[in-house]
Amino acid sequence: MPKEGITPRAEDYSQWYLDIVRNADLADYAEVVRGCIVFKPTGYAIWEAIQRGLDERIKETGHVNAYFPLLIPKSFLMREAEHVEGFAPEVAEVTRGGGEELAEPYVVRPTSETIIGYFYAKWVRSWRDLPLLINQWANVMRWEMRTRPFLRTAEFLWQEGHTVHATEAEAERETLMILHDVYADFVEKEMALPVIRGLKTEKEKFPGALRSYCIEAMMQDGRALQAGTSHNLGQNFARAFDITFTDQHNTVQHAWTTSWGVSTRLIGALIMAHSDDEGLVVPPRLAPIQVVVVPIHKNDAERGPVMEAVARITASWKGRIRFKIDDRDNQTPGYKYNEWELKGVPVRVEVGPKDVEKGTVAVARRDIPGRAGKSFVAQEGLSERIEALLDEIQQGLYQRALRFQQEHTFAAATYDELKAGVERGFVRCYWDGSSDDEKRIQDETRATIRCIPLDQPGVAGSCIYTGRQTTQQVIFARAY
Amino acid sequence: MPKEGITPRAEDYSQWYLDIVRNADLADYAEVVRGCIVFKPTGYAIWEAIQRGLDERIKETGHVNAYFPLLIPKSFLMREAEHVEGFAPEVAEVTRGGGEELAEPYVVRPTSETIIGYFYAKWVRSWRDLPLLINQWANVMRWEMRTRPFLRTAEFLWQEGHTVHATEAEAERETLMILHDVYADFVEKEMALPVIRGLKTEKEKFPGALRSYCIEAMMQDGRALQAGTSHNLGQNFARAFDITFTDQHNTVQHAWTTSWGVSTRLIGALIMAHSDDEGLVVPPRLAPIQVVVVPIHKNDAERGPVMEAVARITASWKGRIRFKIDDRDNQTPGYKYNEWELKGVPVRVEVGPKDVEKGTVAVARRDIPGRAGKSFVAQEGLSERIEALLDEIQQGLYQRALRFQQEHTFAAATYDELKAGVERGFVRCYWDGSSDDEKRIQDETRATIRCIPLDQPGVAGSCIYTGRQTTQQVIFARAY
Repeated sequence: MPKEGITPRAEDYSQWYLDIVRNADLADYAEVVRGCIVFKPTGYAIWEAIQRGLDERIKETGHVNAYFPLLIPKSFLMREAEHVEGFAPEVAEVTRGGGEELAEPYVVRPTSETIIGYFYAKWVRSWRDLPLLINQWANVMRWEMRTRPFLRTAEFLWQEGHTVHATEAEAERETLMILHDVYADFVEKEMALPVIRGLKTEKEKFPGALRSYCIEAMMQDGRALQAGTSHNLGQNFARAFDITFTDQHNTVQHAWTTSWGVSTRLIGALIMAHSDDEGLVVPPRLAPIQVVVVPIHKNDAERGPVMEAVARITASWKGRIRFKIDDRDNQTPGYKYNEWELKGVPVRVEVGPKDVEKGTVAVARRDIPGRAGKSFVAQEGLSERIEALLDEIQQGLYQRALRFQQEHTFAAATYDELKAGVERGFVRCYWDGSSDDEKRIQDETRATIRCIPLDQPGVAGSCIYTGRQTTQQVIFARAY
Repeated sequence: MPKEGITPRAEDYSQWYLDIVRNADLADYAEVVRGCIVFKPTGYAIWEAIQRGLDERIKETGHVNAYFPLLIPKSFLMREAEHVEGFAPEVAEVTRGGGEELAEPYVVRPTSETIIGYFYAKWVRSWRDLPLLINQWANVMRWEMRTRPFLRTAEFLWQEGHTVHATEAEAERETLMILHDVYADFVEKEMALPVIRGLKTEKEKFPGALRSYCIEAMMQDGRALQAGTSHNLGQNFARAFDITFTDQHNTVQHAWTTSWGVSTRLIGALIMAHSDDEGLVVPPRLAPIQVVVVPIHKNDAERGPVMEAVARITASWKGRIRFKIDDRDNQTPGYKYNEWELKGVPVRVEVGPKDVEKGTVAVARRDIPGRAGKSFVAQEGLSERIEALLDEIQQGLYQRALRFQQEHTFAAATYDELKAGVERGFVRCYWDGSSDDEKRIQDETRATIRCIPLDQPGVAGSCIYTGRQTTQQVIFARAY
């Protein structure tokens, strides 16, 4: 039975998404600021959890954080030919400051390769300064025409890593390391979301990159969401900003740079991958609140023993389990159950007078709604049971998403099969076409090549569009 | 003996500050973006430590984080009369987006009372929605004419708390709780910096506030630095943005709001309060690296046993002590000592072949430079010794700063005494003058009333300027 205020997924997936965002209180439309949203506390707490998991991995792999200016001289964007084409049309421009017209306008950063490139050129002198491994957590702005909470907003939050290396091989190693050890590892282990790792085609790569890698996740409507990108920028930005170094043989060379980022889009991915018609579902490892405890009592006589039991049960949880005791007096248990289901808390523990008598509690799993996910459990050893259950839910969500992805990925040998496949999910097929061919397929099917997966069969087949023999397979899908 | 590249404090305090910033590699001038700096990794790591300590306290006192838009419709600033006067002259304006002129310009937030007020008006309906306790970590921009790294820059980073309450008393309680339990507690305990808690005068309060409270710290040149402010905004912004609620008697009322913030200025305060002519000094509780271990070996035969000892000594440190082993092969020990002194690491441990033989290490304290701060310590029980030492350094820095503050705070009974006192530090005196009197004193002495301290003697005296009897004492000082 779907909840009031939530359109069932099967009926209208797009409206379902907006209903989840509103009912779980994740965001508000900032109608007075074009294309922007407010990240409300429940939504922002998910971003904080994402930041923690990523920041830890970014630092463990040898990077440090820094902060570069929000504003970029507009002329900087123009220095890299592909980059200006990609970003200039969608920037916000600061033309006045302190009450006066500026001689040269600034743009609000849409991404920071250019401004960071300028500083790296000052900082990098010798091979001893390399590699330079810096990350930045920041807000960025792209003047989008069509917006959608978390998925596409004019202002969004992200991290952007920018590194400098002495050789192409090192830059490539960094680009792939970030893809595997930081992005895929985080999204699969913490967000419980299986991803396909791949290379972007020329048509889809980052403006100014030599090669762009990505991780692509499947949403519950079979569409793809790009969950992170990692770019080997070659020497393109090093040339544009003159990032050079003296090597061990005393020769001055242009450096090799990379950049990589994930954003608050991931909140959108989280919602669309795991949630159901009852509301948000958050994987335990990411959940700001993993367990909500609801005490149930009708009068003061019941209240004392129940609250005592709640205190005893949760006494050892601090530092082990992220929990909240919902002891609001002005709301019924039913109201509370509904609210925490909407907000996606993985486990609910109910403690009533009968539980106190019997030494039990009721435990409800958010990933299995209704009666099927509810059981009565002894208070003794509860902490361990809860910890095991959180782990089980985490693994269960991942396996469910993986199964869904596998069941909705179709091998296609003909263009007709491709057209049918992208109606329902991902299509994997041989590809040897051009960027123009890609464009034609996009116009006809609304599907794009999401990536050239890193794991390739190593067996030749015929291109779905040109019929030419090739060993290269790609993934086609409609995307967010 | 002062270090090369660092102007002694006694000679030119202002240049000394800039030399510390450059030599400790804390920031870079962003000459291409007016008034902005780059927060380099060493400087940003201090900000991350500040964020951790503050965020913990902000959450422990019941607040949650959220994120509001960077851009504010320009007309919003105009809604509160004092607010527009205070901020409109120094904003950056976005007038173009996506290649087109905007019908109404936006300003890049100089502070967010107005945009957040707009949303709070939507969210707050009933007394049940109150209090609303939200904090935001964000970048802000004020088009400053004269800039100075960390202390005054066009763009800076901060947290801004914004809360809504049902009554004036509750708003006042919140304002003071933040001042004491979040700001003063953090700055004194973590930054080892004693502060004076007080109320701003009408002339110095936040534009639009009913009352502004602050914490003021003394720098080593005797000048004041405002380290945090907490404002009771009364109903001013609630009226300007129509933040109303239905109370328990079903009457619609305007709410009471507060706002409070600290910024990357604190990095400047940290530098100016503790550092010396050898470089930066960071208190252990805040230090990103608390202990640096420098292995000393002249050849491969020495290297093995030394590195083994280093590994053994530090084996139990993970999770207890934040440390770094500086095993760079291309730098001498002397170079490393110098670098870590410049960067303010509280404790250095040196391990050489003789130490391996004797079962000792050399321990050098950053807060006591040179021979006096160096001692030889047994490897056995070293971890506990180091932990105790870090604590001792933390307390020592606080006590030293407190003594300095006390020795440079002067009671004044005449205007001449005030004039003499502000040359060397803070002046505490009776005050019953007007805002115009304050202005005249500022013009004549370059000193302002930093605050009306919360602890007052409760004994009358005569105002230093008007001669009138009053029980109110204030602190005058020159300020950053």
